[in-house]
Amino acid sequence: MSTSAGWDRPRTSLYTDHYELTMLQAALHSGAAHRESVFEAFARRLPDGRRYGIVGGTGRLLEGIADFRFGDTEIDFLRRTKVVNEETLDYLAGFSFSGDIWGYAEGEAYFPNSPILIVESTFAEACILETYILSILNHDSAIASAASRMITAAGNRPCVEMGSRRTQEESAVSAARAAIIAGFDSTSNLEAGLRYGLKTVGTAAHSFTLVHDTEQEAFEAQIASMGAGTALLVDTYDVEAGVRTAVELAGDKLGAVRLDSGDLVAQAQWVRQLLDDLGNERTRIIVTSDLDEFAIAALQSAPVDSYGVGTSLVTGSGAPTASLVYKLVSRTDDDGDFVSVAKAAKNKASMGGRKYALRKLNERGTATQEIVGIGHRPDDDGNDRPLLQQFVKNGELLPGWTGAEGVLRARKRHAETMKELPAVVNRLQRGEAAIPTIYEEN
Amino acid sequence: MSTSAGWDRPRTSLYTDHYELTMLQAALHSGAAHRESVFEAFARRLPDGRRYGIVGGTGRLLEGIADFRFGDTEIDFLRRTKVVNEETLDYLAGFSFSGDIWGYAEGEAYFPNSPILIVESTFAEACILETYILSILNHDSAIASAASRMITAAGNRPCVEMGSRRTQEESAVSAARAAIIAGFDSTSNLEAGLRYGLKTVGTAAHSFTLVHDTEQEAFEAQIASMGAGTALLVDTYDVEAGVRTAVELAGDKLGAVRLDSGDLVAQAQWVRQLLDDLGNERTRIIVTSDLDEFAIAALQSAPVDSYGVGTSLVTGSGAPTASLVYKLVSRTDDDGDFVSVAKAAKNKASMGGRKYALRKLNERGTATQEIVGIGHRPDDDGNDRPLLQQFVKNGELLPGWTGAEGVLRARKRHAETMKELPAVVNRLQRGEAAIPTIYEEN
Repeated sequence: MSTSAGWDRPRTSLYTDHYELTMLQAALHSGAAHRESVFEAFARRLPDGRRYGIVGGTGRLLEGIADFRFGDTEIDFLRRTKVVNEETLDYLAGFSFSGDIWGYAEGEAYFPNSPILIVESTFAEACILETYILSILNHDSAIASAASRMITAAGNRPCVEMGSRRTQEESAVSAARAAIIAGFDSTSNLEAGLRYGLKTVGTAAHSFTLVHDTEQEAFEAQIASMGAGTALLVDTYDVEAGVRTAVELAGDKLGAVRLDSGDLVAQAQWVRQLLDDLGNERTRIIVTSDLDEFAIAALQSAPVDSYGVGTSLVTGSGAPTASLVYKLVSRTDDDGDFVSVAKAAKNKASMGGRKYALRKLNERGTATQEIVGIGHRPDDDGNDRPLLQQFVKNGELLPGWTGAEGVLRARKRHAETMKELPAVVNRLQRGEAAIPTIYEEN
Repeated sequence: MSTSAGWDRPRTSLYTDHYELTMLQAALHSGAAHRESVFEAFARRLPDGRRYGIVGGTGRLLEGIADFRFGDTEIDFLRRTKVVNEETLDYLAGFSFSGDIWGYAEGEAYFPNSPILIVESTFAEACILETYILSILNHDSAIASAASRMITAAGNRPCVEMGSRRTQEESAVSAARAAIIAGFDSTSNLEAGLRYGLKTVGTAAHSFTLVHDTEQEAFEAQIASMGAGTALLVDTYDVEAGVRTAVELAGDKLGAVRLDSGDLVAQAQWVRQLLDDLGNERTRIIVTSDLDEFAIAALQSAPVDSYGVGTSLVTGSGAPTASLVYKLVSRTDDDGDFVSVAKAAKNKASMGGRKYALRKLNERGTATQEIVGIGHRPDDDGNDRPLLQQFVKNGELLPGWTGAEGVLRARKRHAETMKELPAVVNRLQRGEAAIPTIYEEN
C-alpha cells in the first residue's frame, strides 16, 4: 500500500461483491476468464429532472486500482470462508491489473449513455474490478453533480462544503473532494485537507457559545484566540443582540457573522443593514441552515457573502447515487475476434461494442450533441471534442490524474465543461438532458 | 491503531470538522475547555412518515473513539496548515478520551428526542468527537432504519444486502454491517465479511452469461465450478428458455434461479409453476431488481424465496441520513455546579440537562411511551425498561459492544425491540411515531 501525504491507503481488493470472485472461479473453469473484454460504465438516465451529470471519483478510483491486490490477509480470509477454490486463490494472489482504462476526464459533464469509463482487459481482470469501480464513480459523481448545481446557483459567491456529519466518515472525505472538483471553495473536513491538499475552514458552533456563561465571553474568547477576522455565530440567543455584541468586541475588523437558523432572506437583509449602520460594511454574512441549490437560488437577491452547505450536498440533493452500471459490451470469441454483446431483457437494452465519444460543438463553442459511436471515430472531428482520455495503459497508471494534482485538473475540467454547455444547465427546474445523446455506427 | 480480524483500523481523529479544533483552541484560551459537559446525540424528528428509527453504528463508533488520537502525521498537518496554535497542538498530542459514554444499545428502536448517545467529559473532549460521532450514527442509523422496514416487509423470507456498488466503498462496508444488525441474512460485501465475520453470498451477473458463447455454456461452467446448488441468473436472454436450460443442466438439485428484471410478481408466479412442472419444487426463486420495502411488500403473495436488496437499502430508502444532532445540554459553571443549557433560537429549542430514558411497557409487554426525563430516574420503574447503557467509563471501553460480538448483540437487540413495539411499526404507510415521547422532570 502506498502512502500519499501521510495517508496509508487501505486495502481495496475486498471492496468487492462476493459474486465477482465466484464468477471469476467459474470463468477460470470454462476458460472464458481469459477472453479479451470491453466493459463500460455509464448511466442509463440522469436523476429525475437533472440536465447533466458530472463525473467524480476517477482519480480516487485509479489510485485504488493500483492498490487492488490480494495479500495474505485477503487470501486467508477467502480460503477460510470458502468463497472460492484454490485455483482461483492462486489467480488472485498474482493479480494486478494489466489492461487499459479509458474514460471521461474527472470533472467532465456526462449525459445518458455517455461511456464514462471503459475497461479493456481479460474478462477476469475487468470482472473483479466491477464493484469497486461502481462504488466510487456512483458516489463521487452523485456528489459532484449536486455540487455543480449548487455552484451554478451561487453565482460568484463561494460555497463551503460542511456536510461531514451527515454522511459516513469516509464518504465525507470523498464528498469533500468531489465538492471541490465541482467548484466549492473549501471544506470543513480535515482528513480531506490532509489527503488532497484541500483548503479547510471553520467557524464555531452553538455549543461553544453555550459552554461560556454569556455570549460576550464566548465571542471574547474566540476573538482573542482567532483574531477579529474570525466568523462569529450570532444566532444562539438573539440575533440582533449577537450582532451588536460581535461588533462591539471585534470592531470594524470583524470578519463575518454566521446565520444558521430562521428566515435567512429577511434576516440577511436586516443584519446587513445593522452591520452597515454600525460601520461594519466589510463584515461578511455567511449562511448555513440546511441549504440546497434551491435555497441558494432563493438567496440570490439577499446580501449574503457565502454559503455553507451540508446535508443536501453529501446526500446528492435527492440523488445519493448516480445509478451508473458497468456492462460487458464486447469480448473475443474462440478465434480472438471481438463480438459485441448485450443483454436481451426488455427495458435494459445496452448498446454493444467499444465506443468512441465526442461532444459536438457549434460555431460559438456551445455543446449541441453527445455523440456516442461504435466502430472507428470519424477522421474529421470538425467542431467535435473527443471525450475519452486514457488513464491506464498495460496496467501502468498514466500521470496527472491522481492525488492533489488530479483534483486540481478535475476542478479545471469542470469549470471548462460548464462554460461549453448550453445555458439550460443554469436552470434548476426539472427537464430533459441539456443535450441529446446521438448514436453513430461507422 | 489496533488490528481486528486482519483489519488495520484507520486514523479516526481527522474525520473531524475544522471548527471542532478552532473551538477547542478558543475554549482552551477562555478556560471553558475544562468545564465538565454533557453532550447528547438525538433526532429532532424521524424521516418523513417513518414510525421509528433503529440505532446503528455504536459499535463502530466505540472502536473508532478508542483509536481517536493525534499522532505525528496529524499534528504535522495541523501545524503546517495553521489550523490551530501550538498550545492546542500540545493538547491534541496528549489527547485520549477519558470521560463516560452512555447511550441506546445498537439495534435499539428510537423516537424523536430519544437520547441515543450521551457523552460526559470536559467540553474539550466531547467537542472534538462531535463530527465523528454524528458521521457514524447518522449513516449507520439511516441504513439500519431502512433495513428494519425491509425485514418487516419480507416477513420470514431472508433478505440479502447487495448494495455495495451504489454507495461509497467504505459506506458499503458500514451499510452491510447495519443491514445485518437489522435482520438481513447476509451480504455481498467481502470486506464486511472480513471485518465483522458476516456471512457473504453471491450468484452471477449478466456479464458472466455474455462472456460465454451461449447461456448453456455459462450455466455449465457455473454448475461445474460451484455445484448444482448454485443460483443461476436466468433473465439474460429469455427467462423461460433460461429456466429450462438451468433445470436441464443442474437437475432437481438446482439451488435457485435469480430474476433481476421485468414484472417480478407475474414472473415469479409462472417461473414457480414452470420449476414445479419440471420437477424442481425445491429450487428457490431469488428476486433482486431495484427492490425497496414497498416492492418487497408487493411481492408478499408471490412465490418468492428471498430478496436481494441494493440501492434503496444503502441510500436509506429516501432518508440517506438520520439527521441526528449533537448538542451541549449541560455544563459546569465556575463553582463546578451543572447548569442546563439550550439554544434559544426558534424551532430548534433543545431540552437542556442530563437525561434518563425509559420505554414504558403495558401489561402485555408492548411499548406505549418513550419517557425522556431530566433529573433523577424514578426509583420504581414498574413496567418501564431503562434504555441507557454505559459504553465507556473513565475512558475505558466496556466489553461486549464492539467487533463481531457487538454486531451479534445488536442484531439480537433489534429482534427483541421489534417484538416489543406496537403493531403499527409493521405499516409502511406514512404516519406518526409509533409511540409518543413524553418528557418528565423530577
